[in-house]
Amino acid sequence: MPPRSPLAPAEFPALPVIGGARFAIAEAGVRYKGRPDVMLAMLDPGSVMAGVFTRSATRSANVLDCQAKIAADSSEGAAIVVNSGNSNAFTGRAGEGSVEAICEAVAEQTGLPASRVFTSSTGVIGERLPHDRITAKLEELTGKLDGASLPDAARAIMTTDTFPKAATAQIEVDGKPVKIAGIAKGSGMIAPDMATMLVYIFTDAKIGRAELQAMVSELNAKTFNNITVDSDTSTSDTLLMAATGASGVDVAWNAEFTQALYGVMLDLAHQVVRDGEGATKFVTVHVNHAASEADARTHALSIANSPLVKTALAGEDPNWGRIVMAVGKSGAAADRDALSISFGELLVAEKGWVAESYREADGAAYFKRSEIEIIVDIGLGQGHATVWTCDLTHGYIQINADYRS
Amino acid sequence: MPPRSPLAPAEFPALPVIGGARFAIAEAGVRYKGRPDVMLAMLDPGSVMAGVFTRSATRSANVLDCQAKIAADSSEGAAIVVNSGNSNAFTGRAGEGSVEAICEAVAEQTGLPASRVFTSSTGVIGERLPHDRITAKLEELTGKLDGASLPDAARAIMTTDTFPKAATAQIEVDGKPVKIAGIAKGSGMIAPDMATMLVYIFTDAKIGRAELQAMVSELNAKTFNNITVDSDTSTSDTLLMAATGASGVDVAWNAEFTQALYGVMLDLAHQVVRDGEGATKFVTVHVNHAASEADARTHALSIANSPLVKTALAGEDPNWGRIVMAVGKSGAAADRDALSISFGELLVAEKGWVAESYREADGAAYFKRSEIEIIVDIGLGQGHATVWTCDLTHGYIQINADYRS
Repeated sequence: MPPRSPLAPAEFPALPVIGGARFAIAEAGVRYKGRPDVMLAMLDPGSVMAGVFTRSATRSANVLDCQAKIAADSSEGAAIVVNSGNSNAFTGRAGEGSVEAICEAVAEQTGLPASRVFTSSTGVIGERLPHDRITAKLEELTGKLDGASLPDAARAIMTTDTFPKAATAQIEVDGKPVKIAGIAKGSGMIAPDMATMLVYIFTDAKIGRAELQAMVSELNAKTFNNITVDSDTSTSDTLLMAATGASGVDVAWNAEFTQALYGVMLDLAHQVVRDGEGATKFVTVHVNHAASEADARTHALSIANSPLVKTALAGEDPNWGRIVMAVGKSGAAADRDALSISFGELLVAEKGWVAESYREADGAAYFKRSEIEIIVDIGLGQGHATVWTCDLTHGYIQINADYRS
Repeated sequence: MPPRSPLAPAEFPALPVIGGARFAIAEAGVRYKGRPDVMLAMLDPGSVMAGVFTRSATRSANVLDCQAKIAADSSEGAAIVVNSGNSNAFTGRAGEGSVEAICEAVAEQTGLPASRVFTSSTGVIGERLPHDRITAKLEELTGKLDGASLPDAARAIMTTDTFPKAATAQIEVDGKPVKIAGIAKGSGMIAPDMATMLVYIFTDAKIGRAELQAMVSELNAKTFNNITVDSDTSTSDTLLMAATGASGVDVAWNAEFTQALYGVMLDLAHQVVRDGEGATKFVTVHVNHAASEADARTHALSIANSPLVKTALAGEDPNWGRIVMAVGKSGAAADRDALSISFGELLVAEKGWVAESYREADGAAYFKRSEIEIIVDIGLGQGHATVWTCDLTHGYIQINADYRS
């Protein structure tokens, strides 16, 4: 096991109980022994669900099943079952069979229709999911459902994560509290043979399904879709959000709720980067004044995914020439003489060359920080984008190459 | 200095003298001391020139100057001046000034018009090129031009290359020999702070400028454009080809010549991959039966550039799930159940799952080789592509992160 990431938050947050949502975990032994590897979340009748999923063309049977179910309006409640250790991806027709078997067993155990059971699997690709080990634990799981067990769930869904990830927020609407609590796993887009970023967020707010979905999709584009550890996209990425309505507070069109949810999602997204495989630097890349929003994102991802930029960060080498290179190769519009580059407040390059005021020693001192901001102004338009990433270190190679799966 | 790549060819080829082309090298001390770092190639009157260049939006002043000059029809001969140690990229207006100063000095020394002088610079980005050190050596260089000095030129253009790169071919047309000889540098798209892949090819064949350009562009698309070490594109990539006509043999529409030139370009392209930073595996990725040629190339590059595929290769881990992931994330069309994956002759996965005949031990044995073929059949159409790459090792991190520039 790699040690806890040096970029991990100081402590795990105190998660509130979300009315209408209960959780349980179990040791099913899917792949790991002697640790919890399955979680069950039960959402009360009246809960609405929203989700976003990987766009991989080889996505897992679980993702395809969730996508088919997520848009249904239902007042019957819902269940979420997640296992770690095996991703059930690229397992042919057997993969669909495993998802069906789990959903039917949960339906039988809980009385929910199978169409309201959502599943995720994370771990090795291409190996048959021993789903009977999961279904064998359903009675135990439903017997110990508890609103206070969300922190346990954050641990049960870990694969090679070095710390459990959670975030929470609370707002008041007309004097009534509305709570949000979310958990995530992910350590790079993928870990040694184990895939996936998974995110589950719960609120007791009351909101329509279509509105919740629109809000989650929009906020996802500003948070989870703008993080990258190694540019490799999992076959299983899943974000599910449930609003139970237990607070009785309607949050449709409530800007404060949107902002609170954004904060929770951003916090979880950052925690995934902070647990990036081998990461020693947390890096924010801002691209401003690109010709378009799309161009800004293309430049930002080109910088964030460049192995040479990432190794320069690892080496604490303020090698801004590599940032010029990454902008140049991205395919989006750029003009050497309009470009400027800053590290935080430190202006590094402008007007097609190194800035007159820049001193290499200042750049080197800045790069010793564990949190680094790279700001690139393209100088061509109004497109802005922010992307978060980490450095590329010997630790990444060690985790992904040195140990046989 | 890293040791000679384990994938290097056994020996440097015997390069023929190309009539009409002469070469010289010198120690100008641009950045390196005590080793040659400048080459001059002089092409006799009647030579035609063709070239392909990086598409980077932040390409160097030299590349922009070559692009402006390359399409001119001229019978006045030509000169090529290349320095290592400084790329003259992102050096503002001073970069253009340096190129102009070199071209004018060469013109004065040789009697060529400045419009027939082509320059390349490779090395650190963003530092002013001390072009006076180069022009100070022009008299020495022109005084020792020699048709037999091409092997020396292959050494002079090296930056962090671990071996000099050259390839040659000879054909006969109506009993008359036609010769091709080329040199290249490159060790990853970029080396610690030093950029660039540079390629210079010479032939004594007689051919029109437009035909030569068309041939070089087409063959470049099948060779240098299909190699990747780290997905990072240099600001200085340049391929220049000169046909002196000294053989008196017209090779327009000669398929045998095209094939011979293809062989030389492919050989040089492979040598650049074999000197990829930290490389221990030479990897060929074939993608067959994609929906289109473009889709095939997208899939092949997605596999070849995936850090997780590259670290699996480094770890000799036949982790085919990562190949499924890379196909899935590429954005090109794919269907889980139509896909098949082979390692050389070994069928690994088909029909959406691991192949029945596949044994992990066979995959593991195959991955111990230093030359590996990954063959992916998408099963959707007639698009084919082949891409060459290397693995991602601790050596890459060491070269690019551990040493400060």
